[in-house]
Amino acid sequence: MDSDYGIPRELSDLQKLRSTYQPILPPCLQGTTVRVEFGDAATAADSAGAHTISRVFPHTYGQPLAHFLRATAKVPDAQIITNHPAIRVGVVFCGRQSPGGHNVIWGLHDALKIHNPNSTLLGFLGGSDGLFAQKTLEITDDILATYKNQGGYDLLGRTKDQIRTTEQVNAALAACSALRLDGLVILGGVTSNTDAAHLAEVFAEAKCLTKVVGVPVTLNGDLKNQFVESNVGFDTICKVNSQLISNVCTDALSAEKYYYFIRLMGRKASHVALECTLQSHPNMVILGEEVAASKLTLFDLTKQICDAVQSRAEQDKYHGVILLPEGLIESIPEVYALLQEIHGLLRQGVSVDNISSQLSPWASALFEFLPPFIRKQLLLFPESDDSAQLSQIETEKLLAHLVEEEMNKRTKEGTYKGKKFNAICHFFGYQARGSLPSKFDCDYPFVLGHICYHILAAGLNGYLATVTNLKHPVNKWRCGAAPITAMMTVKRYGRGAGASSVGKPALHPATVDLTGKAYELLRKNATKFLMEDVYRNPGPLQFDGPGADAKAVILCVEDQDYMGRIKELKEYLDKVRTIVKPGCSQDVLKAALSAMASVTEILSNFIDETVGLGCKIIGRTV
Amino acid sequence: MDSDYGIPRELSDLQKLRSTYQPILPPCLQGTTVRVEFGDAATAADSAGAHTISRVFPHTYGQPLAHFLRATAKVPDAQIITNHPAIRVGVVFCGRQSPGGHNVIWGLHDALKIHNPNSTLLGFLGGSDGLFAQKTLEITDDILATYKNQGGYDLLGRTKDQIRTTEQVNAALAACSALRLDGLVILGGVTSNTDAAHLAEVFAEAKCLTKVVGVPVTLNGDLKNQFVESNVGFDTICKVNSQLISNVCTDALSAEKYYYFIRLMGRKASHVALECTLQSHPNMVILGEEVAASKLTLFDLTKQICDAVQSRAEQDKYHGVILLPEGLIESIPEVYALLQEIHGLLRQGVSVDNISSQLSPWASALFEFLPPFIRKQLLLFPESDDSAQLSQIETEKLLAHLVEEEMNKRTKEGTYKGKKFNAICHFFGYQARGSLPSKFDCDYPFVLGHICYHILAAGLNGYLATVTNLKHPVNKWRCGAAPITAMMTVKRYGRGAGASSVGKPALHPATVDLTGKAYELLRKNATKFLMEDVYRNPGPLQFDGPGADAKAVILCVEDQDYMGRIKELKEYLDKVRTIVKPGCSQDVLKAALSAMASVTEILSNFIDETVGLGCKIIGRTV
Repeated sequence: MDSDYGIPRELSDLQKLRSTYQPILPPCLQGTTVRVEFGDAATAADSAGAHTISRVFPHTYGQPLAHFLRATAKVPDAQIITNHPAIRVGVVFCGRQSPGGHNVIWGLHDALKIHNPNSTLLGFLGGSDGLFAQKTLEITDDILATYKNQGGYDLLGRTKDQIRTTEQVNAALAACSALRLDGLVILGGVTSNTDAAHLAEVFAEAKCLTKVVGVPVTLNGDLKNQFVESNVGFDTICKVNSQLISNVCTDALSAEKYYYFIRLMGRKASHVALECTLQSHPNMVILGEEVAASKLTLFDLTKQICDAVQSRAEQDKYHGVILLPEGLIESIPEVYALLQEIHGLLRQGVSVDNISSQLSPWASALFEFLPPFIRKQLLLFPESDDSAQLSQIETEKLLAHLVEEEMNKRTKEGTYKGKKFNAICHFFGYQARGSLPSKFDCDYPFVLGHICYHILAAGLNGYLATVTNLKHPVNKWRCGAAPITAMMTVKRYGRGAGASSVGKPALHPATVDLTGKAYELLRKNATKFLMEDVYRNPGPLQFDGPGADAKAVILCVEDQDYMGRIKELKEYLDKVRTIVKPGCSQDVLKAALSAMASVTEILSNFIDETVGLGCKIIGRTV
Repeated sequence: MDSDYGIPRELSDLQKLRSTYQPILPPCLQGTTVRVEFGDAATAADSAGAHTISRVFPHTYGQPLAHFLRATAKVPDAQIITNHPAIRVGVVFCGRQSPGGHNVIWGLHDALKIHNPNSTLLGFLGGSDGLFAQKTLEITDDILATYKNQGGYDLLGRTKDQIRTTEQVNAALAACSALRLDGLVILGGVTSNTDAAHLAEVFAEAKCLTKVVGVPVTLNGDLKNQFVESNVGFDTICKVNSQLISNVCTDALSAEKYYYFIRLMGRKASHVALECTLQSHPNMVILGEEVAASKLTLFDLTKQICDAVQSRAEQDKYHGVILLPEGLIESIPEVYALLQEIHGLLRQGVSVDNISSQLSPWASALFEFLPPFIRKQLLLFPESDDSAQLSQIETEKLLAHLVEEEMNKRTKEGTYKGKKFNAICHFFGYQARGSLPSKFDCDYPFVLGHICYHILAAGLNGYLATVTNLKHPVNKWRCGAAPITAMMTVKRYGRGAGASSVGKPALHPATVDLTGKAYELLRKNATKFLMEDVYRNPGPLQFDGPGADAKAVILCVEDQDYMGRIKELKEYLDKVRTIVKPGCSQDVLKAALSAMASVTEILSNFIDETVGLGCKIIGRTV
């Protein structure tokens, strides 16, 4: 055991107060008796990929959804798990540290001990490396004392994010077998939970007794699908960043002479940028998804911002705040193409100094057009997931630079007659990650930790713990579990002239839905935000009083609770069955038949249309 | 009037709650009757410069200190000001926006209206430019409603920081006369309050009826002297930055693979960096004052950090957090010399491209040694106060770069055998400035606003509002006023071979006292901070509960309350006079004579020593 981990530490007064906060459980998880109801077998939303997924995951695809209900719930098929033997569970932090991660461990430990005080929870030290090396720390009440409701991952630490290569998977299998684990709980985002699903499949195939459970913990908020409404950490990250953004807005409005360009986290998806915009109302936000969808060039973006600057100048406004996600640079089609060429050459071993001369003429022209600092950053070796080193690429400075050049040009040409454009750039990358978690990010992971226990108690493998109806108070939350494989999709890559190749099934980051309600809210307010300086200052993260219970705007406006609706539908079907029992009157039976006939007809038409649409899309893609 | 200012705006729930917060007044300012006691004439602490100061400020130098006491205070010489005619006061934001600035205006407005509802408060719109242009907004309860206890300067805005040139001073004089102001209140730091003192002198000379009052509002916290313990804004800035620094510390400890280099505000003085270190316990801080005092070179600094990195690696620690103030770069002697050469050439009109070739050989060697991004930043035109554009110079990146190179070198040479050194850089420059003010930064400026009124009611000109004993609760605060001229010093500049020139009297930024208690506290803990990762997380700024009433560590450890002691001394002297009245017994008289003889002897010796020391220092400087 590494003596650096899990040691008691001195807490500040506020940390001490927070460590005494006790998240409550939704009614279904209270007490020691929980009922489990299994739904129908879950299929992948990606119906075209379903065959591939089922082939790769023969043991873990097609398992049913699970709903956890209170013991007194009147659901005919639900079963109470009465046998709670002492079990041994391991838990590992994967992926980037997110506020609230510690509370998953606390919730899991709490549930384990409530059901059997002889159960054991082992934390793997130093993330997946600790799993491979079988370095563990037994979690106890004493150890948890100074980590409850606290930020960071420092109770256990983390290292690399992946459990993927054969060597790594074998090491994980060996560790779980050697430690005689009944369960392995993995905290992470899309990558880590894809790994969890593969591990579950390998373990099942190898007849290893360890069941694998995933937990959606990622501050990017991009592990979203019909089963998962939000991720642990996202709420805090957005609140802390919104605090800073609104401070900068106030600053801009006080001095009235600077445009602030602020780069936020968010690689493949711009959820953080969208949520922060809805919380703090800066003048402008550029989402990667918009740029990709409209195929905007660097020139388009520059022009868009310059036009905004010019419109504001006409109202005598020379300040503003513009947000962008770190992934933006990869969303710009021509920059993405350039990056692909650079990464290809780097992988071939071409030295940085020689890359410029080996680029295609078109890519080379773009490269030479860019200012030197960005050129240097684009030449960095790509990350393990093939994306550029986005945290190192100062897109905010690039845009500020291009806008300044264009505004100077407009001034010279006489088309812009306002004051000189001044920009200040910021990257809000790391200052929120270690924050004390918001109340939501204390409650949600604590409940998820409890659910992990019930998933294991029900003997399920390859599931993700889920809580839905999150926008409502905790007592309305619905707890469940869904097979990770049901959330997977299979990507198809076009390789020129009709040929295509099929990727491995995986969870993919959910991007901002440009037809969704959150984006609609942004669009509706975009002009007001741009021109009227209706900056909103939610203030620093509070744990009591106004704002303490506020939830993410995205979460509140979106129409979610898929799991709840699946259950509701089942209840309707059961009710029909109960009402129309053999022996009921002819009239009732007739009415039921007629009503159900029209329901099925509506649904058949609806599915035909959707499938037709799906085929069309696939037809176009292939 | 510019319709953009003072308009009601929508507040977030937390802002609304804060807007209802009512700061309390110390007992001496409660009610409508305040007693003023005048102390002895204040002399400049800079006794060598006293003559110069008195010559430049014939009307406003040598005025007495003023103490504001409760009406019932039993002080023989104190007077109650009973006549409170309706007066007209102007207020202007100078200098950089600091959290709490709005509350000075609220406090002043409150005091004005309590004493005479017919008094008028005019806010100048857009800072000193608004003063020159006589653009005003009459402050009313309605206007203040959404600005009470809120951050930023957006109620009135700000522009340039100076009221200095003859043209500017004349414009200010014309404005105050035209608007028939009885008082002009200026909020700002050392520069703005120096300007306030000059304005007071000019107004007095011109027999203008407007009295000028200064208020110590600067987030750098460098307007410190025997009369001024802290500045409005410093508390909030340090709390918000400490929140972010401690988040980064937690992050560093969770991932264990990065060194974070964080640049903080603080130009001539490193108070913010020192205070944030004492609040959040990062591994290392480099204060400009230490570097200047020890004449450390860039090479020394690099070596110091590398040695620290190496010691930590020997304990298997590959993460850390290092703070530095933005002014650090100018504190490094050889870089300062280089900057002086560059600025000289820039002022001569030498183009940026030609500067490198015109530097002295030594400066040129240093310049060429520096990485290109820093070279470009050093070539920026200096600011109006002759300092470099410190917010634009990424000293944190320079140090990270030099440390990385040195660690790579040590690795190659085999003297360092640890893992690769990885750095991530941050500049925490603007994200705290617009913050909601802490409770301290709501209370302190509100009280200062009230004091401004009493200074004007007492007919004083060229004074700074002061509150001392700040580390104690509000009911122990002492309220007073000191002539700004008594805080001035006169700098002597050596100009080679014995010659020296004398600068203009001015307030100068107080640097961190390397013999003071706050710095001692840092030194005592430096090794523990460096090696043991005793990170402290004060958490986000709270307005209730633990931490909400915490005050700056520097304020609490320093031995201050000079104003209180001056008063206490006066009370002792008065008491002796009361006890030893003519008619007292011979024994009492004898005892008093003997006791006072030894007191005066001790003091004479003490003063001789101090003056001797002063002469020595001056002798060395000239």
